[in-house]
Amino acid sequence: MFQGKIKADFMKLITDAIEILVDEAKIKIKEDGIYGRMVDPAHVGMIDFKIEKDAFDEYKFESEEEIAFDLEKLSGILKIAGSNDTVEIKYEKEGRLIVGFSNITKRIGLLDASEMPDTKVPSLELQAEIVVPTEQMHRIIKAAEGISDHIILEGGKDYFEMRAEGDNDSVELKIPKEELISIKCEEKVKSMFPIDYLGDMIKIAKEASPEIKINLGNNYPVKLSFEASGGVIKIVYLLAPRIESD
Amino acid sequence: MFQGKIKADFMKLITDAIEILVDEAKIKIKEDGIYGRMVDPAHVGMIDFKIEKDAFDEYKFESEEEIAFDLEKLSGILKIAGSNDTVEIKYEKEGRLIVGFSNITKRIGLLDASEMPDTKVPSLELQAEIVVPTEQMHRIIKAAEGISDHIILEGGKDYFEMRAEGDNDSVELKIPKEELISIKCEEKVKSMFPIDYLGDMIKIAKEASPEIKINLGNNYPVKLSFEASGGVIKIVYLLAPRIESD
Amino acid sequence: MFQGKIKADFMKLITDAIEILVDEAKIKIKEDGIYGRMVDPAHVGMIDFKIEKDAFDEYKFESEEEIAFDLEKLSGILKIAGSNDTVEIKYEKEGRLIVGFSNITKRIGLLDASEMPDTKVPSLELQAEIVVPTEQMHRIIKAAEGISDHIILEGGKDYFEMRAEGDNDSVELKIPKEELISIKCEEKVKSMFPIDYLGDMIKIAKEASPEIKINLGNNYPVKLSFEASGGVIKIVYLLAPRIESD
Repeated sequence: MFQGKIKADFMKLITDAIEILVDEAKIKIKEDGIYGRMVDPAHVGMIDFKIEKDAFDEYKFESEEEIAFDLEKLSGILKIAGSNDTVEIKYEKEGRLIVGFSNITKRIGLLDASEMPDTKVPSLELQAEIVVPTEQMHRIIKAAEGISDHIILEGGKDYFEMRAEGDNDSVELKIPKEELISIKCEEKVKSMFPIDYLGDMIKIAKEASPEIKINLGNNYPVKLSFEASGGVIKIVYLLAPRIESD
Repeated sequence: MFQGKIKADFMKLITDAIEILVDEAKIKIKEDGIYGRMVDPAHVGMIDFKIEKDAFDEYKFESEEEIAFDLEKLSGILKIAGSNDTVEIKYEKEGRLIVGFSNITKRIGLLDASEMPDTKVPSLELQAEIVVPTEQMHRIIKAAEGISDHIILEGGKDYFEMRAEGDNDSVELKIPKEELISIKCEEKVKSMFPIDYLGDMIKIAKEASPEIKINLGNNYPVKLSFEASGGVIKIVYLLAPRIESD
Repeated sequence: MFQGKIKADFMKLITDAIEILVDEAKIKIKEDGIYGRMVDPAHVGMIDFKIEKDAFDEYKFESEEEIAFDLEKLSGILKIAGSNDTVEIKYEKEGRLIVGFSNITKRIGLLDASEMPDTKVPSLELQAEIVVPTEQMHRIIKAAEGISDHIILEGGKDYFEMRAEGDNDSVELKIPKEELISIKCEEKVKSMFPIDYLGDMIKIAKEASPEIKINLGNNYPVKLSFEASGGVIKIVYLLAPRIESD
């Protein structure tokens, strides 16, 4: 049995964040919060999130549960809740997921969680850690659309750069050290990523937080981390690189 | 001959309200106001409205007239008027319908009203009369979309309920007596309606008024009544039930 | 070599103004400003514009240059700039067009300007000159859509009129002398124009200025002139008439 009350906006952020990768969500309800880890069908992007118990106004927990459901069924009802509505979420063993707010109750039929594979977070050694203003990353993603399908992320000792190159055109964002929130980068690192995935991830990050932590290596996956609501919601995305042909 | 001046918003509400059911409108201009009653081609929904003479800033009436026209031709020109524009409406026998505001004049060719059948309001005995906050009805309609094509309206002694049931999911709104504006309901009544029609009707009601009066029976049509602008515009919708299969 | 700094909004207005007629822009950088003159592929509409040197915060000019480029590549990056961003534009001979703002740099490959024909402004004798509130022209264009594909512009001694006539319906705007900004019109002039072109031009004019100067003749092209930003940006459209069949 689980029963919790949480601001509708917190749940909307999480469902939006998952929905860019998968249609069906599998989540774990634990004593200290709700966890989820899913990879998209093409195995290019992964989400790993935690909603801390403290994100909830009320959190009644009895035993660990793992449940799975069509994400749209949850995100659909959350869209109807106002930003300031508090949503009540209930689950009883073998029952349905119950979502309620202001006289409305939705019962969501569950999927068989045991049939959905567990996702493991790969261990990655990423040399550079750079914290960047989310808004600037969002802008360059928009500027790069139409120029190329992929975008290069590059870190140096005193800068962070994103650039896309087309046949005749190119666009780049170069943020000097003094405009970054922080940078740990001993030597140049560079990897290339698909714009569509990265753009979706940055869009979610922008909703959640003014800054995003980027762990970057050479031709290696990138790790994007950000927190919402004073740290009680933590979202990490991993994104596989595209290998540069030249 | 008829000549009237009225706030553009009042006319927009009426054309919107008719447009959810029919493409061609037939209206009657009488000494005390403008009347209209139309049923949709599938004979599922009916509108019965009155714009009181008092809704007009000016109302010059000579003789009763019945005119018919493509609704889009009127709603199109009203869209261009600002909310606070006053619209002048003129009709001379065998002429066109003339709509004017701020230097713009539109002349709308008429249809043959005598070829369009008259619509009679069926006499209905509906046991329950419940006055509900429009906003809450609007919310549950949105929540029910995607779950089912029909929605159940149910009244009890001390509550009003709307619910939609899908194969695995369900959603319901249950408003207790103390949150209703009023309720007269001796015993449980229940009828089921198509969501698309009901949703369109509720949307119009929401534009017009914060409350809506529902007259409900058992497996029987529902009557939805609301007023705008302090009662000078009265709109009634009737909606045929769907018969529950179980 | 050319290097200039200008408010993003000024450049957006010009690219929007050109984009309604052509996909590829050819512009001339001169000592006193940037010029452009293009005609649409169907030879129905022409734009002739000037951005005065004074529209720029900085204007470094060395030699006259003529460059051509896909308009979308410039308008796309301008969309990402905020209204108050200042955009830096650079061009070095045989190089690319470089557009920069807030850490972002876009390099746009150029087209061969010498392969694009020069456009000459025809000499027109237009009897009437009428200055009209742009908002009213915009409204009547919207009202005329759906009634006809063309619209008549007519000037008289003491009025300006626009009207569209369908089979059963018509719509007109008639502005009396006292509501016009100015009128010089000795005798009645009248020409008819395609609504789609005229509507696009009026929309741009409305963004730029509350008034528009119309030079009108009989079954003759119309000249529409307006200025933005206190006169440092000048846009003139020419539009070919449709010949009335009756």
